Amino acid sequence: MLKNTKKGQLIVISGPSGVGKSTVISEVRRERKSLTFSISYTTRKPRQGEENHVQYHFLDRAEFEQMIADGQFLEYAVYENNYYGTAKQDVENLITAGYDVLLDIDVQGGASVRNACPDSVSIFVIPPSFGELSRRLYGRKSETAEVIQGRLRRAREEYKEIPNYDYLVVNDQVTKAAEEVLAILKAQDCRVSARLDMIKEDISL
Amino acid sequence: MLKNTKKGQLIVISGPSGVGKSTVISEVRRERKSLTFSISYTTRKPRQGEENHVQYHFLDRAEFEQMIADGQFLEYAVYENNYYGTAKQDVENLITAGYDVLLDIDVQGGASVRNACPDSVSIFVIPPSFGELSRRLYGRKSETAEVIQGRLRRAREEYKEIPNYDYLVVNDQVTKAAEEVLAILKAQDCRVSARLDMIKEDISL
Repeated sequence: MLKNTKKGQLIVISGPSGVGKSTVISEVRRERKSLTFSISYTTRKPRQGEENHVQYHFLDRAEFEQMIADGQFLEYAVYENNYYGTAKQDVENLITAGYDVLLDIDVQGGASVRNACPDSVSIFVIPPSFGELSRRLYGRKSETAEVIQGRLRRAREEYKEIPNYDYLVVNDQVTKAAEEVLAILKAQDCRVSARLDMIKEDISL
Repeated sequence: MLKNTKKGQLIVISGPSGVGKSTVISEVRRERKSLTFSISYTTRKPRQGEENHVQYHFLDRAEFEQMIADGQFLEYAVYENNYYGTAKQDVENLITAGYDVLLDIDVQGGASVRNACPDSVSIFVIPPSFGELSRRLYGRKSETAEVIQGRLRRAREEYKEIPNYDYLVVNDQVTKAAEEVLAILKAQDCRVSARLDMIKEDISL
């Protein structure tokens, strides 16, 4: 009677630069082994130590634009003059294989994914306050004040898109934020739409 | 910046008789102290040990029907010739006070609540299989075979309403089922719609 198709979920995670998304994600992945990433495509040059098909699929501009023209991207964006994109087919393969695919993307990408995959779930991560975000960004001492100010401006813009997300997680303490993300994923597993197969036979009787 | 209105949630829980809902609920309440019940109104006579306004608000038929006429019920139903109902005002008061209100009601009641409160969350609890439900009901040895057969027939009818619920929880192991319900409630806390107040000021800037 009880059958589980075990298809994975598609999860969008967005939030301002400096909010600590990657730390939260690492914590979540420790608990939820099925969680993975889809390797993105990019036109940016590989950095030292980066290998093709590991951190990214590295393409040249013409190749990337051909993939756009062929409608192969679930979402793509331009940062600092380089393309970054997620391929539909890669995501589909992972989900069919039972992986939960996490896309760490900005609000434009989030909107594309929501349109293309209404079954996906979207989570926006915020800092406890804007002042705190600013402190965190300045505290890293890895960017110039101009860069940081640009990121804060961008964060303010991105906040306006929060009402289009499903969930809002405050990264005050990493453990607490990770627990919230884990609860969201577990709740997603329990959606009737994800478990309809379990009762198909009993319903048809 | 971060403000939380701390309004409670309205949770509908349904599922066939014998599925072990009350055991799961007790387990959930141990972890989630904000979870409570709204005391129902009924026209059935108090049983030994039952006190008015404790287990139920006991009313006579005319009083109950007056409350129906006045639109005071969020949902009500008839079982074995007696009315049972949940008062809107009681639920509202509890939610405003920050309690999560759990309504353990059947599929008709569930439909009424979903219509009246689109913000509520609904969970349907099923046994691992129909055979298992039947074993559990017969195993209790507290009802006649006719009563049990009636409950199984009713369960089959109720299953058809599952697609209208938000979540489906399989009570195979109580702990696991309770963890799923807890995750659902925690995810509900994280909904953007429940946390919009947290970012109201930051968005308006």
